[in-house]
Amino acid sequence: MEYPSKLIEQAVEEIAKLPGIGRKTALRLALHMLRQNPDYTEGLAEALTRLRKDIRYCKQCHNISDKEFCSICESHRRDVSTLCVVENIQDVMAIENTSQYQGKYHVLGGIISPVAGIGPEELNLESLIARVAAVESEIKEIILALPATMEGDTTSFYIRRKLEPYSVSVSTIARGIPVGGELEYTDEITLGRSILMRTKYTDGSAGTA
Amino acid sequence: MEYPSKLIEQAVEEIAKLPGIGRKTALRLALHMLRQNPDYTEGLAEALTRLRKDIRYCKQCHNISDKEFCSICESHRRDVSTLCVVENIQDVMAIENTSQYQGKYHVLGGIISPVAGIGPEELNLESLIARVAAVESEIKEIILALPATMEGDTTSFYIRRKLEPYSVSVSTIARGIPVGGELEYTDEITLGRSILMRTKYTDGSAGTA
Repeated sequence: MEYPSKLIEQAVEEIAKLPGIGRKTALRLALHMLRQNPDYTEGLAEALTRLRKDIRYCKQCHNISDKEFCSICESHRRDVSTLCVVENIQDVMAIENTSQYQGKYHVLGGIISPVAGIGPEELNLESLIARVAAVESEIKEIILALPATMEGDTTSFYIRRKLEPYSVSVSTIARGIPVGGELEYTDEITLGRSILMRTKYTDGSAGTA
Repeated sequence: MEYPSKLIEQAVEEIAKLPGIGRKTALRLALHMLRQNPDYTEGLAEALTRLRKDIRYCKQCHNISDKEFCSICESHRRDVSTLCVVENIQDVMAIENTSQYQGKYHVLGGIISPVAGIGPEELNLESLIARVAAVESEIKEIILALPATMEGDTTSFYIRRKLEPYSVSVSTIARGIPVGGELEYTDEITLGRSILMRTKYTDGSAGTA
């Protein structure tokens, strides 16, 4: 496509580098900005620049943070005995949104994927083991909250093996029919697993929707 | 949603102001930028800032331009006797992509829409009439290439009336079955119009696909 202006061409090129945004959408966004008050584009550009320049990662759990340690790691109200291992920052936010988890986190920054060329050494795994192995460690349980995919399962398996020498219990989040899900529309693997991994109605906590 | 960092929150807020981008997508884009080289975010921010600050509009046709007059208005190879009236800059680009038009343009910057509160005075209509009325005007034909909607038809009607005092012929782009379109899947109004506005096979130019 030929653009009537070099400025718009450059802006479109840069916007179209973002994932899921093609040239048509990029052009639409650029022309939208031209119709807005100049303050808006300035604010956007500044927010992006500051984000990229000033962002920090928590030294302990690798979550995004404005300081050396993130607010979850710094909090005294969180349970230090449980550690939830997740793939990325979005997962921390998703779990935090449930308000069902009071422990701490460890962000791997990815999962093992031979296809994408991501091996264990690319992930924040050494620091996870170090947290568990530390003399002052109070961690009693590790919850693996990784995707229910081949790569997620491989990563969980790898971490479990690495954690074997330490006296921590390792669990994984439940897989099964989503709340509100109809049996007839659930895929066979999930349904099959949910029968095999059925929960007994004994301790009161199970059986609630 | 709670964000682990003020920086990411601000970036998400700004990105989510763009049309068609919600907070989830904005977060995905922001986290994508964090995974890229810092140069990328810098380049994007600069391109957007420069676009908004330095962009100019052609003084004659209101197309986007890097200079006082756009490349189409400045070109000596374009036919000065035909003027194509379009709603916006994207339409100029779409018509230019067909390579079927050699005349000049006039960008209205919108169409008359009582629902959206856009009246004739919000559009670049006065300058259109001025171009036609100018003593040195060489314009012989005005092609109205406006959307095939109520608003588009209203605007076309308004322009036709305004152009009545001048000796220019006014035409509109053809409406009908799109090339490659099947009759059975075409809506009744388009199909009905295409029968009423049928083209005779006499002058050779019609009848080609």
